[in-house]
Amino acid sequence: MAAVTGEDVARARAAVAQRAPLVQCLTNSVVQTITANALLAAGAAPAMVDNVHEAAPFAAVASAVLVNVGTLDDVKATAMALAAGAARAHGTPWVLDPVAVGGLEFRTRVARDLLEHAPTVVRANASEVLGLAGAGAGGRGVDATDGVEDAVEAARALSSRTGGAVAVSGTVDVVVHAGRTVRVPGGHELLTRTTGAGCSLGALVAAYAGVEPDPLVAAVAAHLHVAVAAERAAERAAGPGSFATAWLDELDAVDAGALGAAAGRLA
Amino acid sequence: MAAVTGEDVARARAAVAQRAPLVQCLTNSVVQTITANALLAAGAAPAMVDNVHEAAPFAAVASAVLVNVGTLDDVKATAMALAAGAARAHGTPWVLDPVAVGGLEFRTRVARDLLEHAPTVVRANASEVLGLAGAGAGGRGVDATDGVEDAVEAARALSSRTGGAVAVSGTVDVVVHAGRTVRVPGGHELLTRTTGAGCSLGALVAAYAGVEPDPLVAAVAAHLHVAVAAERAAERAAGPGSFATAWLDELDAVDAGALGAAAGRLA
Amino acid sequence: MAAVTGEDVARARAAVAQRAPLVQCLTNSVVQTITANALLAAGAAPAMVDNVHEAAPFAAVASAVLVNVGTLDDVKATAMALAAGAARAHGTPWVLDPVAVGGLEFRTRVARDLLEHAPTVVRANASEVLGLAGAGAGGRGVDATDGVEDAVEAARALSSRTGGAVAVSGTVDVVVHAGRTVRVPGGHELLTRTTGAGCSLGALVAAYAGVEPDPLVAAVAAHLHVAVAAERAAERAAGPGSFATAWLDELDAVDAGALGAAAGRLA
Repeated sequence: MAAVTGEDVARARAAVAQRAPLVQCLTNSVVQTITANALLAAGAAPAMVDNVHEAAPFAAVASAVLVNVGTLDDVKATAMALAAGAARAHGTPWVLDPVAVGGLEFRTRVARDLLEHAPTVVRANASEVLGLAGAGAGGRGVDATDGVEDAVEAARALSSRTGGAVAVSGTVDVVVHAGRTVRVPGGHELLTRTTGAGCSLGALVAAYAGVEPDPLVAAVAAHLHVAVAAERAAERAAGPGSFATAWLDELDAVDAGALGAAAGRLA
Repeated sequence: MAAVTGEDVARARAAVAQRAPLVQCLTNSVVQTITANALLAAGAAPAMVDNVHEAAPFAAVASAVLVNVGTLDDVKATAMALAAGAARAHGTPWVLDPVAVGGLEFRTRVARDLLEHAPTVVRANASEVLGLAGAGAGGRGVDATDGVEDAVEAARALSSRTGGAVAVSGTVDVVVHAGRTVRVPGGHELLTRTTGAGCSLGALVAAYAGVEPDPLVAAVAAHLHVAVAAERAAERAAGPGSFATAWLDELDAVDAGALGAAAGRLA
Repeated sequence: MAAVTGEDVARARAAVAQRAPLVQCLTNSVVQTITANALLAAGAAPAMVDNVHEAAPFAAVASAVLVNVGTLDDVKATAMALAAGAARAHGTPWVLDPVAVGGLEFRTRVARDLLEHAPTVVRANASEVLGLAGAGAGGRGVDATDGVEDAVEAARALSSRTGGAVAVSGTVDVVVHAGRTVRVPGGHELLTRTTGAGCSLGALVAAYAGVEPDPLVAAVAAHLHVAVAAERAAERAAGPGSFATAWLDELDAVDAGALGAAAGRLA
């Protein structure tokens, strides 16, 4: 039996819908719209508060914080450090999405510094996990060139350092935390043809972490939610454009019952 | 009879379609795309000219200016003050959308300073109107925690200060100006599940203000336009993703005749 | 017979699909999402790497670079000059999209300076080509107020200066390079009602230039690809919202065979 059950993910899904966690997003400019829409579709409340004046005070009161380094600059890097520091100080769960870390020196340094604030969950592809951990050659932009299973050891090492969960996204996602490992198969290839699907997943992990104290359950529930919605959306999509639209519809439609029922695939 | 008639809103809608007002938008990064698309769908012409070099000269020649403080930073705040100042000096109508003002100190100060440039219309939810006026506890991020009717007195006081209209968006929108009050019922709950729908409404108010000299008519017409389009879109939407797409279609489809016919609900 | 054949565009389309060119985009904040989605739909890989630390090293390894000056500021202007300089130095093809150049002094100066780095293709509307070349009165924001044919001489002069191709987009697009001229009719009016369609075209020109050494072929293939996808999308769209979604679907669906078959219209 997997370390995360159908009851676990159903409970977390219901909590997101009922409590509407306020998710502060410091994320890249390409994906802000779909990230906000994915959070709204799931029943969470997005707030893109990412300036240096408001980042820290808002992190103190938000339900959760997402930090995604996709289109970084010096000012945003400062705001991210302030938000992550305030999140840790106030016990606000926070998620680090180290987009394209490993291959690019500036953001790799920034992301590694952010690790000091002990992210509740790191959400990344295999190349980014290896890059963040100091191993691997880095991806090609945002695409992983390493396999998920090649990054599991690095993920476990990262998790030991931060005390949080680490989720490696890929064809089969792997989430590790405190000696536990859960694999989440499923999803759909069209997710990789939709800009911001992975980044929105990071935001959904934050939404779940805002209502669910076990970071492994939060991360697994978010990954399963995205996968099931993608599978449903692909059935009625004519291509990548209509897929993205349908995926948002399905993020809304996948409720606690549907998510719990899909948990049989967890391994 | 309401202070704004079917003939008023039909005339304003026809003017937007025929004159294609050029709307300069200094708005937050989350909603730029849907804002531009909403303006294009209505027949207006968006121009996201928001840097410190171009903000003022462009405001002098644009049909109208939108200032939305959603994702503020110091540089944007400077550009906004330049644009608002130039708009006032050159008689260009301009709209202030004080996103999340009240709860966050930095943007509250910036938005209150912008009031000195006498916005033609302030477009906000109840918590933001109270926050801008110096009353209320502020919203939770972008969500209103106060009721529309609780903000009507503050809206009237704001309107007296600026000389412009103040629109309070909610389940039933209330627009006040110069002793007149109009209520706009309708719309759909899915508008609150679509990021940027409210911000796009602010831009549409600017588009209408660019062709219609009475700010009350401009604001009421824009709110009614958004509400009717939302009701139509909800009929054929499968969820929040397809709603957003259908809403843009319907912003285009709702013409002067349709808007005039829907004005019977105004009170 | 046109200077670009059906075989040429089919070969280029197949190369984009097979080689998935990595396109670095330094583009405006309004259109980042649709630009990334258009590239993904066509089979290319977008990477919005636009900060001053990473712009140059990434341009050295990317397949192609897009520079679009739509929402410029001083920091982005610096990153753009770094990226264009590195692209030229490392032989990376790059495309300049001079949005609203001519009417606005700041971006006109920046865009003219970028010309020194010899863009492989300039992609613009007629008013922007005239503005970049130092002729014409400039457009009204992003809209062309001059006709395509009025800009052909200026396009030829620009092409002589840069050594690259110049594409003038309009009802009938005109692409010039090294004494050759190709006209691309078609497309659909709804492209002008979708924010970022033109900017995405610029990115697709970069994707094609990343796999096709003849800049005339690259530019013509991208324009034809966008036009054919728009015609197909318009057939099933209910308005501008559903058009944008369908257009992304069709950018994916238009393959080498379909593009080659559509080349009979080239003149």
